[in-house]
Amino acid sequence: MADDFNDQALMDKIVSLCKRRGFVFPSSEIYGGFNGFWDYGPYGARMKRAIEALWWHEMVETRDNVEGLDSTIIANPTIWKASGHLDQFSDLMTDCRQCKSRYRVDQMEDPTTCPNCGSKDLTEPREFNLMMKTFVGPVFDEDHVAYLRAETCQPIFVDFHSVRVATRQKLPFGVAQIGKAFRNEINPRNFTFRSREFTQMEMEFFCDGEKGMEWFEYWKAERIRYYREKLGFDDSNMRIYVHEKLAHYAKAAIDIEVKFPFGWGELEGVHHRGTWDLSRHSEFSGQDLQYFDHDNGRKFMPTVIETSVGLDRTMLAILAKSYDEDSAATKKEGMDEDVRVVLHLPPMVAPIQVAVLPQSKKLNENAYALYKDVDRFFRSEYDDTGSIGKRYRRQDEIGTPFCVTFDFDSLNDNAVTVRNRDTMLQERVGVTQLRSYLEEKIGM
Amino acid sequence: MADDFNDQALMDKIVSLCKRRGFVFPSSEIYGGFNGFWDYGPYGARMKRAIEALWWHEMVETRDNVEGLDSTIIANPTIWKASGHLDQFSDLMTDCRQCKSRYRVDQMEDPTTCPNCGSKDLTEPREFNLMMKTFVGPVFDEDHVAYLRAETCQPIFVDFHSVRVATRQKLPFGVAQIGKAFRNEINPRNFTFRSREFTQMEMEFFCDGEKGMEWFEYWKAERIRYYREKLGFDDSNMRIYVHEKLAHYAKAAIDIEVKFPFGWGELEGVHHRGTWDLSRHSEFSGQDLQYFDHDNGRKFMPTVIETSVGLDRTMLAILAKSYDEDSAATKKEGMDEDVRVVLHLPPMVAPIQVAVLPQSKKLNENAYALYKDVDRFFRSEYDDTGSIGKRYRRQDEIGTPFCVTFDFDSLNDNAVTVRNRDTMLQERVGVTQLRSYLEEKIGM
Repeated sequence: MADDFNDQALMDKIVSLCKRRGFVFPSSEIYGGFNGFWDYGPYGARMKRAIEALWWHEMVETRDNVEGLDSTIIANPTIWKASGHLDQFSDLMTDCRQCKSRYRVDQMEDPTTCPNCGSKDLTEPREFNLMMKTFVGPVFDEDHVAYLRAETCQPIFVDFHSVRVATRQKLPFGVAQIGKAFRNEINPRNFTFRSREFTQMEMEFFCDGEKGMEWFEYWKAERIRYYREKLGFDDSNMRIYVHEKLAHYAKAAIDIEVKFPFGWGELEGVHHRGTWDLSRHSEFSGQDLQYFDHDNGRKFMPTVIETSVGLDRTMLAILAKSYDEDSAATKKEGMDEDVRVVLHLPPMVAPIQVAVLPQSKKLNENAYALYKDVDRFFRSEYDDTGSIGKRYRRQDEIGTPFCVTFDFDSLNDNAVTVRNRDTMLQERVGVTQLRSYLEEKIGM
Repeated sequence: MADDFNDQALMDKIVSLCKRRGFVFPSSEIYGGFNGFWDYGPYGARMKRAIEALWWHEMVETRDNVEGLDSTIIANPTIWKASGHLDQFSDLMTDCRQCKSRYRVDQMEDPTTCPNCGSKDLTEPREFNLMMKTFVGPVFDEDHVAYLRAETCQPIFVDFHSVRVATRQKLPFGVAQIGKAFRNEINPRNFTFRSREFTQMEMEFFCDGEKGMEWFEYWKAERIRYYREKLGFDDSNMRIYVHEKLAHYAKAAIDIEVKFPFGWGELEGVHHRGTWDLSRHSEFSGQDLQYFDHDNGRKFMPTVIETSVGLDRTMLAILAKSYDEDSAATKKEGMDEDVRVVLHLPPMVAPIQVAVLPQSKKLNENAYALYKDVDRFFRSEYDDTGSIGKRYRRQDEIGTPFCVTFDFDSLNDNAVTVRNRDTMLQERVGVTQLRSYLEEKIGM
């Protein structure tokens, strides 16, 4: 596998499809946009919610030893002193005095030359903190500064003790949350991969340090299994990056990298963080966050294994691996076309799982009744506009795995034609079997 | 009904239960908290997600003419110029020179006297804008100021055109979103009722102005029906407040008010906003946001009917009306107690819908297998600690509508005892009927 590739044409196609079909478009677009901010339209919001629900189900709902949390974005600013973000969460940046462009030094191929205008008249690199600041309370001074959280995990550490007491959980157990985080990136880029406002899904697992490496290996394996089994990644588009250089407190760290249109990129980190986080918050809060183990009478600071994934990145990676232009499909299904654009989305995260299509508008009454029934169990859509072939292509482009056509025969045989997005094959299925047929195919 | 009441004892009990059971607790509590910010713990996060899912299902998923959106919290600041928030979203406030307290003038019974120390030495009232500001980009000056959204509806207006084109919707149709909003309240108070960071659920319905009042009445009726049928509010704890004084552009406005421990409070607003919002964004963006109706060749600015509800308030109102201390239950179920604390939560939003309890730890293997099965369809919990009576009381306190006890007889008759939280009655139900029994009782 080549390590460096950049398929700008693919990225352009994905961005264009996302805009055209209402998956993702620039925030504030009628005002000329706002750099680094993206809105999710109707299909995008559905897909984002589906990915979120899948993760939450996998990481919280099916596990007795993981609890959910939903903390605020703005919190006591001392948290970010304790976490190190206020002092260290910064990038080195430099300005070109010639063309006024600004760059992160670590992203410049040649840090002495402006990549835009070629000038060598650059400012000395200086630190730029990525935390977004605001003011809480009636006075806008340094005493009233607060920060938008730069990651969702810190509130988990801060609330660890409250959650443990309220739930009566014993170690080992985890706390998970999904939510927005903010970073004032100097150069937002690569569509939703690096934006200034994004959604994280994080789980912090608290355990006895003696079992730390065992749990690290467990979660690493679990998370890789999730990407394989639930989202269809494989060796061709997923790889593990093992960190050689570790933070002084960390014991082990890997990134799960996947292929994006611009090259390999980090999707998730699984990190053995030792006792660093709880120790720091103990120190800065003055609260003893140690755990007392009644079974063996030991008191100790829990070790943390973290799994941290970007939701926006997950969606972009899925779109990238699912995008296909299928020229073999030409003129199939009655369409006069050169190429079929199709998203081979995993059915569990497709914005629409089942489209119900009447063969003719004359069948609307019965077909719509079927749709309302299907819609109770699957994310569904009803479409009676244009030819069946055109409707198939529209559903292909938004990644709908199954199209159910209600035709004139359906009135007699109480059956429908189910057309598979990937194989383009059709199967006749009895209406009474339809739910279980689709549940099985979708993998629910 | 008395208009003024303030049951501080009830509020204290709810706050205490929320902390003790991990529903809601102060953000950053180990750092002394942060005024106006609240975190949702494991049960609270589950309940919040359930309310969100119920609203989304009711307002988006079951309606072909409402689309979902998920926009950023930070957006182009011109939006807030157009919406009027930058100029007008402010409260008059005054400071006591004696004790340094600060107040919203409209909340003072006597605006000439400090309610804290009684001093009459107050500053002249002055405007205080409630928008939270931040800086986007590398320079912290006025050119780089942006705002955290003060409401989730403005991005809906801004994205109206993109959503309409991508989805091919024709008027009338709505766009809905759920998300965080921020207001720098001078005096956050009444627990989660008035906080500085909160979650809104809003739907903006775009229609022809000629049908505006019809749609206003439709949505008003729909939303009242929702509170009655889905969340169990009735005339004893819900009332309609009709706005007499309207904004100059508005045609009609009502608030759905419900009883909170501190008195009646606004839960939701249903507002006929005329063409104001799209007209303003057309003017400030220079984009024509009018709609062309192909059927009759008319071009016009859509009228907006808004339904806007606070998620945190919904949860607080449900907790308040569900909280009960049931002294008639004394000594029932083998418990030696004076009072049973119980939350009569609507089953659809209870954090735990079904608790599975083995009669004895010896039954753990079979009972746990049953739990894992139940957990696939309902929010469930397994508890094998303490007496059955104690476990019932714990579930009562978190509002679990059904406790399923697996006993020694279950091994022979393949049936379990289902105990109803509200009636405390028990029923023997076959394991094979359990899912449909619970689905019906829960109202799924």
